[in-house]
Amino acid sequence: MKKSGKSRARAGRLTTAHGVIETPAFFPVGTQGTVKTMTPAALKEIGVHGILCNTYHLFLRPGPDLIKEAGGLHKFIDWDGTIITDSGGYQVFSVKDLKKVSDEGVKFTSHIDGKKHLFTPEKVIEIQEALAPDIMMPLDECVPHPSSHKDTLKAVKRTSEWARRSKTSVSGKGEEGSGGASPTLFGIIQGGVYKDLREMSAKEIMDIGFPGYAIGGLSVGEPQNLMFDMLDVTVPLLEEEKPRYLMGVGFADDIIGAVERGIDIFDCVIPTRLARHGSFLTEKGHSGIRNAKYTKQFSPIDPECDCYACKNFTAAYIRHLVMAKEILAYVLLTTHNIRFMMRLMERLRQGIVRGET
Amino acid sequence: MKKSGKSRARAGRLTTAHGVIETPAFFPVGTQGTVKTMTPAALKEIGVHGILCNTYHLFLRPGPDLIKEAGGLHKFIDWDGTIITDSGGYQVFSVKDLKKVSDEGVKFTSHIDGKKHLFTPEKVIEIQEALAPDIMMPLDECVPHPSSHKDTLKAVKRTSEWARRSKTSVSGKGEEGSGGASPTLFGIIQGGVYKDLREMSAKEIMDIGFPGYAIGGLSVGEPQNLMFDMLDVTVPLLEEEKPRYLMGVGFADDIIGAVERGIDIFDCVIPTRLARHGSFLTEKGHSGIRNAKYTKQFSPIDPECDCYACKNFTAAYIRHLVMAKEILAYVLLTTHNIRFMMRLMERLRQGIVRGET
Repeated sequence: MKKSGKSRARAGRLTTAHGVIETPAFFPVGTQGTVKTMTPAALKEIGVHGILCNTYHLFLRPGPDLIKEAGGLHKFIDWDGTIITDSGGYQVFSVKDLKKVSDEGVKFTSHIDGKKHLFTPEKVIEIQEALAPDIMMPLDECVPHPSSHKDTLKAVKRTSEWARRSKTSVSGKGEEGSGGASPTLFGIIQGGVYKDLREMSAKEIMDIGFPGYAIGGLSVGEPQNLMFDMLDVTVPLLEEEKPRYLMGVGFADDIIGAVERGIDIFDCVIPTRLARHGSFLTEKGHSGIRNAKYTKQFSPIDPECDCYACKNFTAAYIRHLVMAKEILAYVLLTTHNIRFMMRLMERLRQGIVRGET
Repeated sequence: MKKSGKSRARAGRLTTAHGVIETPAFFPVGTQGTVKTMTPAALKEIGVHGILCNTYHLFLRPGPDLIKEAGGLHKFIDWDGTIITDSGGYQVFSVKDLKKVSDEGVKFTSHIDGKKHLFTPEKVIEIQEALAPDIMMPLDECVPHPSSHKDTLKAVKRTSEWARRSKTSVSGKGEEGSGGASPTLFGIIQGGVYKDLREMSAKEIMDIGFPGYAIGGLSVGEPQNLMFDMLDVTVPLLEEEKPRYLMGVGFADDIIGAVERGIDIFDCVIPTRLARHGSFLTEKGHSGIRNAKYTKQFSPIDPECDCYACKNFTAAYIRHLVMAKEILAYVLLTTHNIRFMMRLMERLRQGIVRGET
């Protein structure tokens, strides 16, 4: 591991049964077992080595039994790189008025068919062991922003208890897809925007002990400085040799600040979601291709970019495709947006190695 | 050119400014300047050398001026293979109650914004010269099936007159994209399901004289035997050394019968449209992937197929993607369906060369 002299940033490697990933690394999200619009071959071509899939969605459709029967998620979706699955907690807690939380777990209603389900820490481990990713996450309680200190404390305590139960329920036996070993279970640290609760959660989760730590419950609407404050409190408490994963963070300036604070792994739907909305990532943020100024721009959306979309097509053509509601538009914009994130991470890594970050 | 000893089938080559295409050949349709869901690179990978684009759609959006300014259609859509553009006639005549036909041309209403437009033979040549495909088509009058002998005769006469005006209005100067030469103008033979009118149309169109002949107005709802009867009447009248193009035909058994009757070129939306509806082409026709029987089919949709979808994914996964409304489903089904057509054409060519067809 190479540590920056200027910040807490570090460049390292995450090793799983499906390869070695240079960190800091960004994991595109393949919610339903596909990074929207992209073939696995196209993902590899732009430098993606790991993706995140959503347990909540795959549990509801096509279901863990089917994926287990298919030989695990890697085989089912033809992705031989690293896969992280989340616990489904974030999705379940995002459903308004459709959930009921108790110490046992979370009762929720499917957004697909209205059926009722119960996620317990044990159930979520069982589902993820059927999916057989490389890294799995324990059920945690995510509080919305803003939440009171009292509510956040309660969620921290419950998250710790659930983490304990999750670790205990790991079977140790994995599917064929994971090389025979059970997926690696990371711990998740909560605590909202309260420094004392972040510290408390970090200590409790580390006391249980996991081979890697995720920081959850950030980038949920709080200002960036608060998010950075929470990282400043939490990251220094973590063991240096273990990977640190900031869940759900994907805006470039958030990532840059988080890398400087010692984060190794990120996942986010931003690049795929923006593409779906007809927007592409730029050095300055993002831009909507429907804007009339692109009508006759017979040059790429990003002349600096080396992706298939930027090397072969003009902004005018991609705008035409979006206006005509053609699927190729979303393929090309997603290709660019994910490649943009990969190039950002490459630059950050290089900066750390060179001692510039 | 290799002629079959058993039928009128022949294996030859179509040479344009953008390459040589072995015939019989199938041209997938890229209505709005994109073969739906496919990158040009992916099309090449599965053996596509030529595509058809729709003048009607590209005229309405993004417009011929923009495409001309972009350097022509090849450059705009990044397709360096052969492009045929149709005349827009078929689309305009398909719009119910939104058109008015006279000897001058067709007045119609845009399906996008309700604006009124007039297509004359001269206007349609002007538009296509701006698009700069390799092969362009003259405005023709397509009658629906069934139509009376009287109406069909009137359409044949008008089609001949429009063909004459089209040929006269060719400027002879092309765009950059077409290698500096004007696109090659083919003639279109009409005549509905009337043998005498097919003969009349063929003779009149050949009297005007074109470097290639298309047969239009078939596969519009008439029984297959009537379509084949029309080919049996028309094809023997055509000059042997010139390419023969059956417009809009794409079902495998229609293509096989038409190849045996001496047709060289086909285009059709069938493979892309079926994919969009969640269906894949098979030796027996096509099958809907939503069918519950594919839920746990952990083998490819077509074990004989060598496409990316069949080599890497199971029917169960593609079904999951369709049920989850994921774009990758349509990418994979389109890849298979077009590759299926390419393999069909390869087999037909080989059959002719071996003297088996």
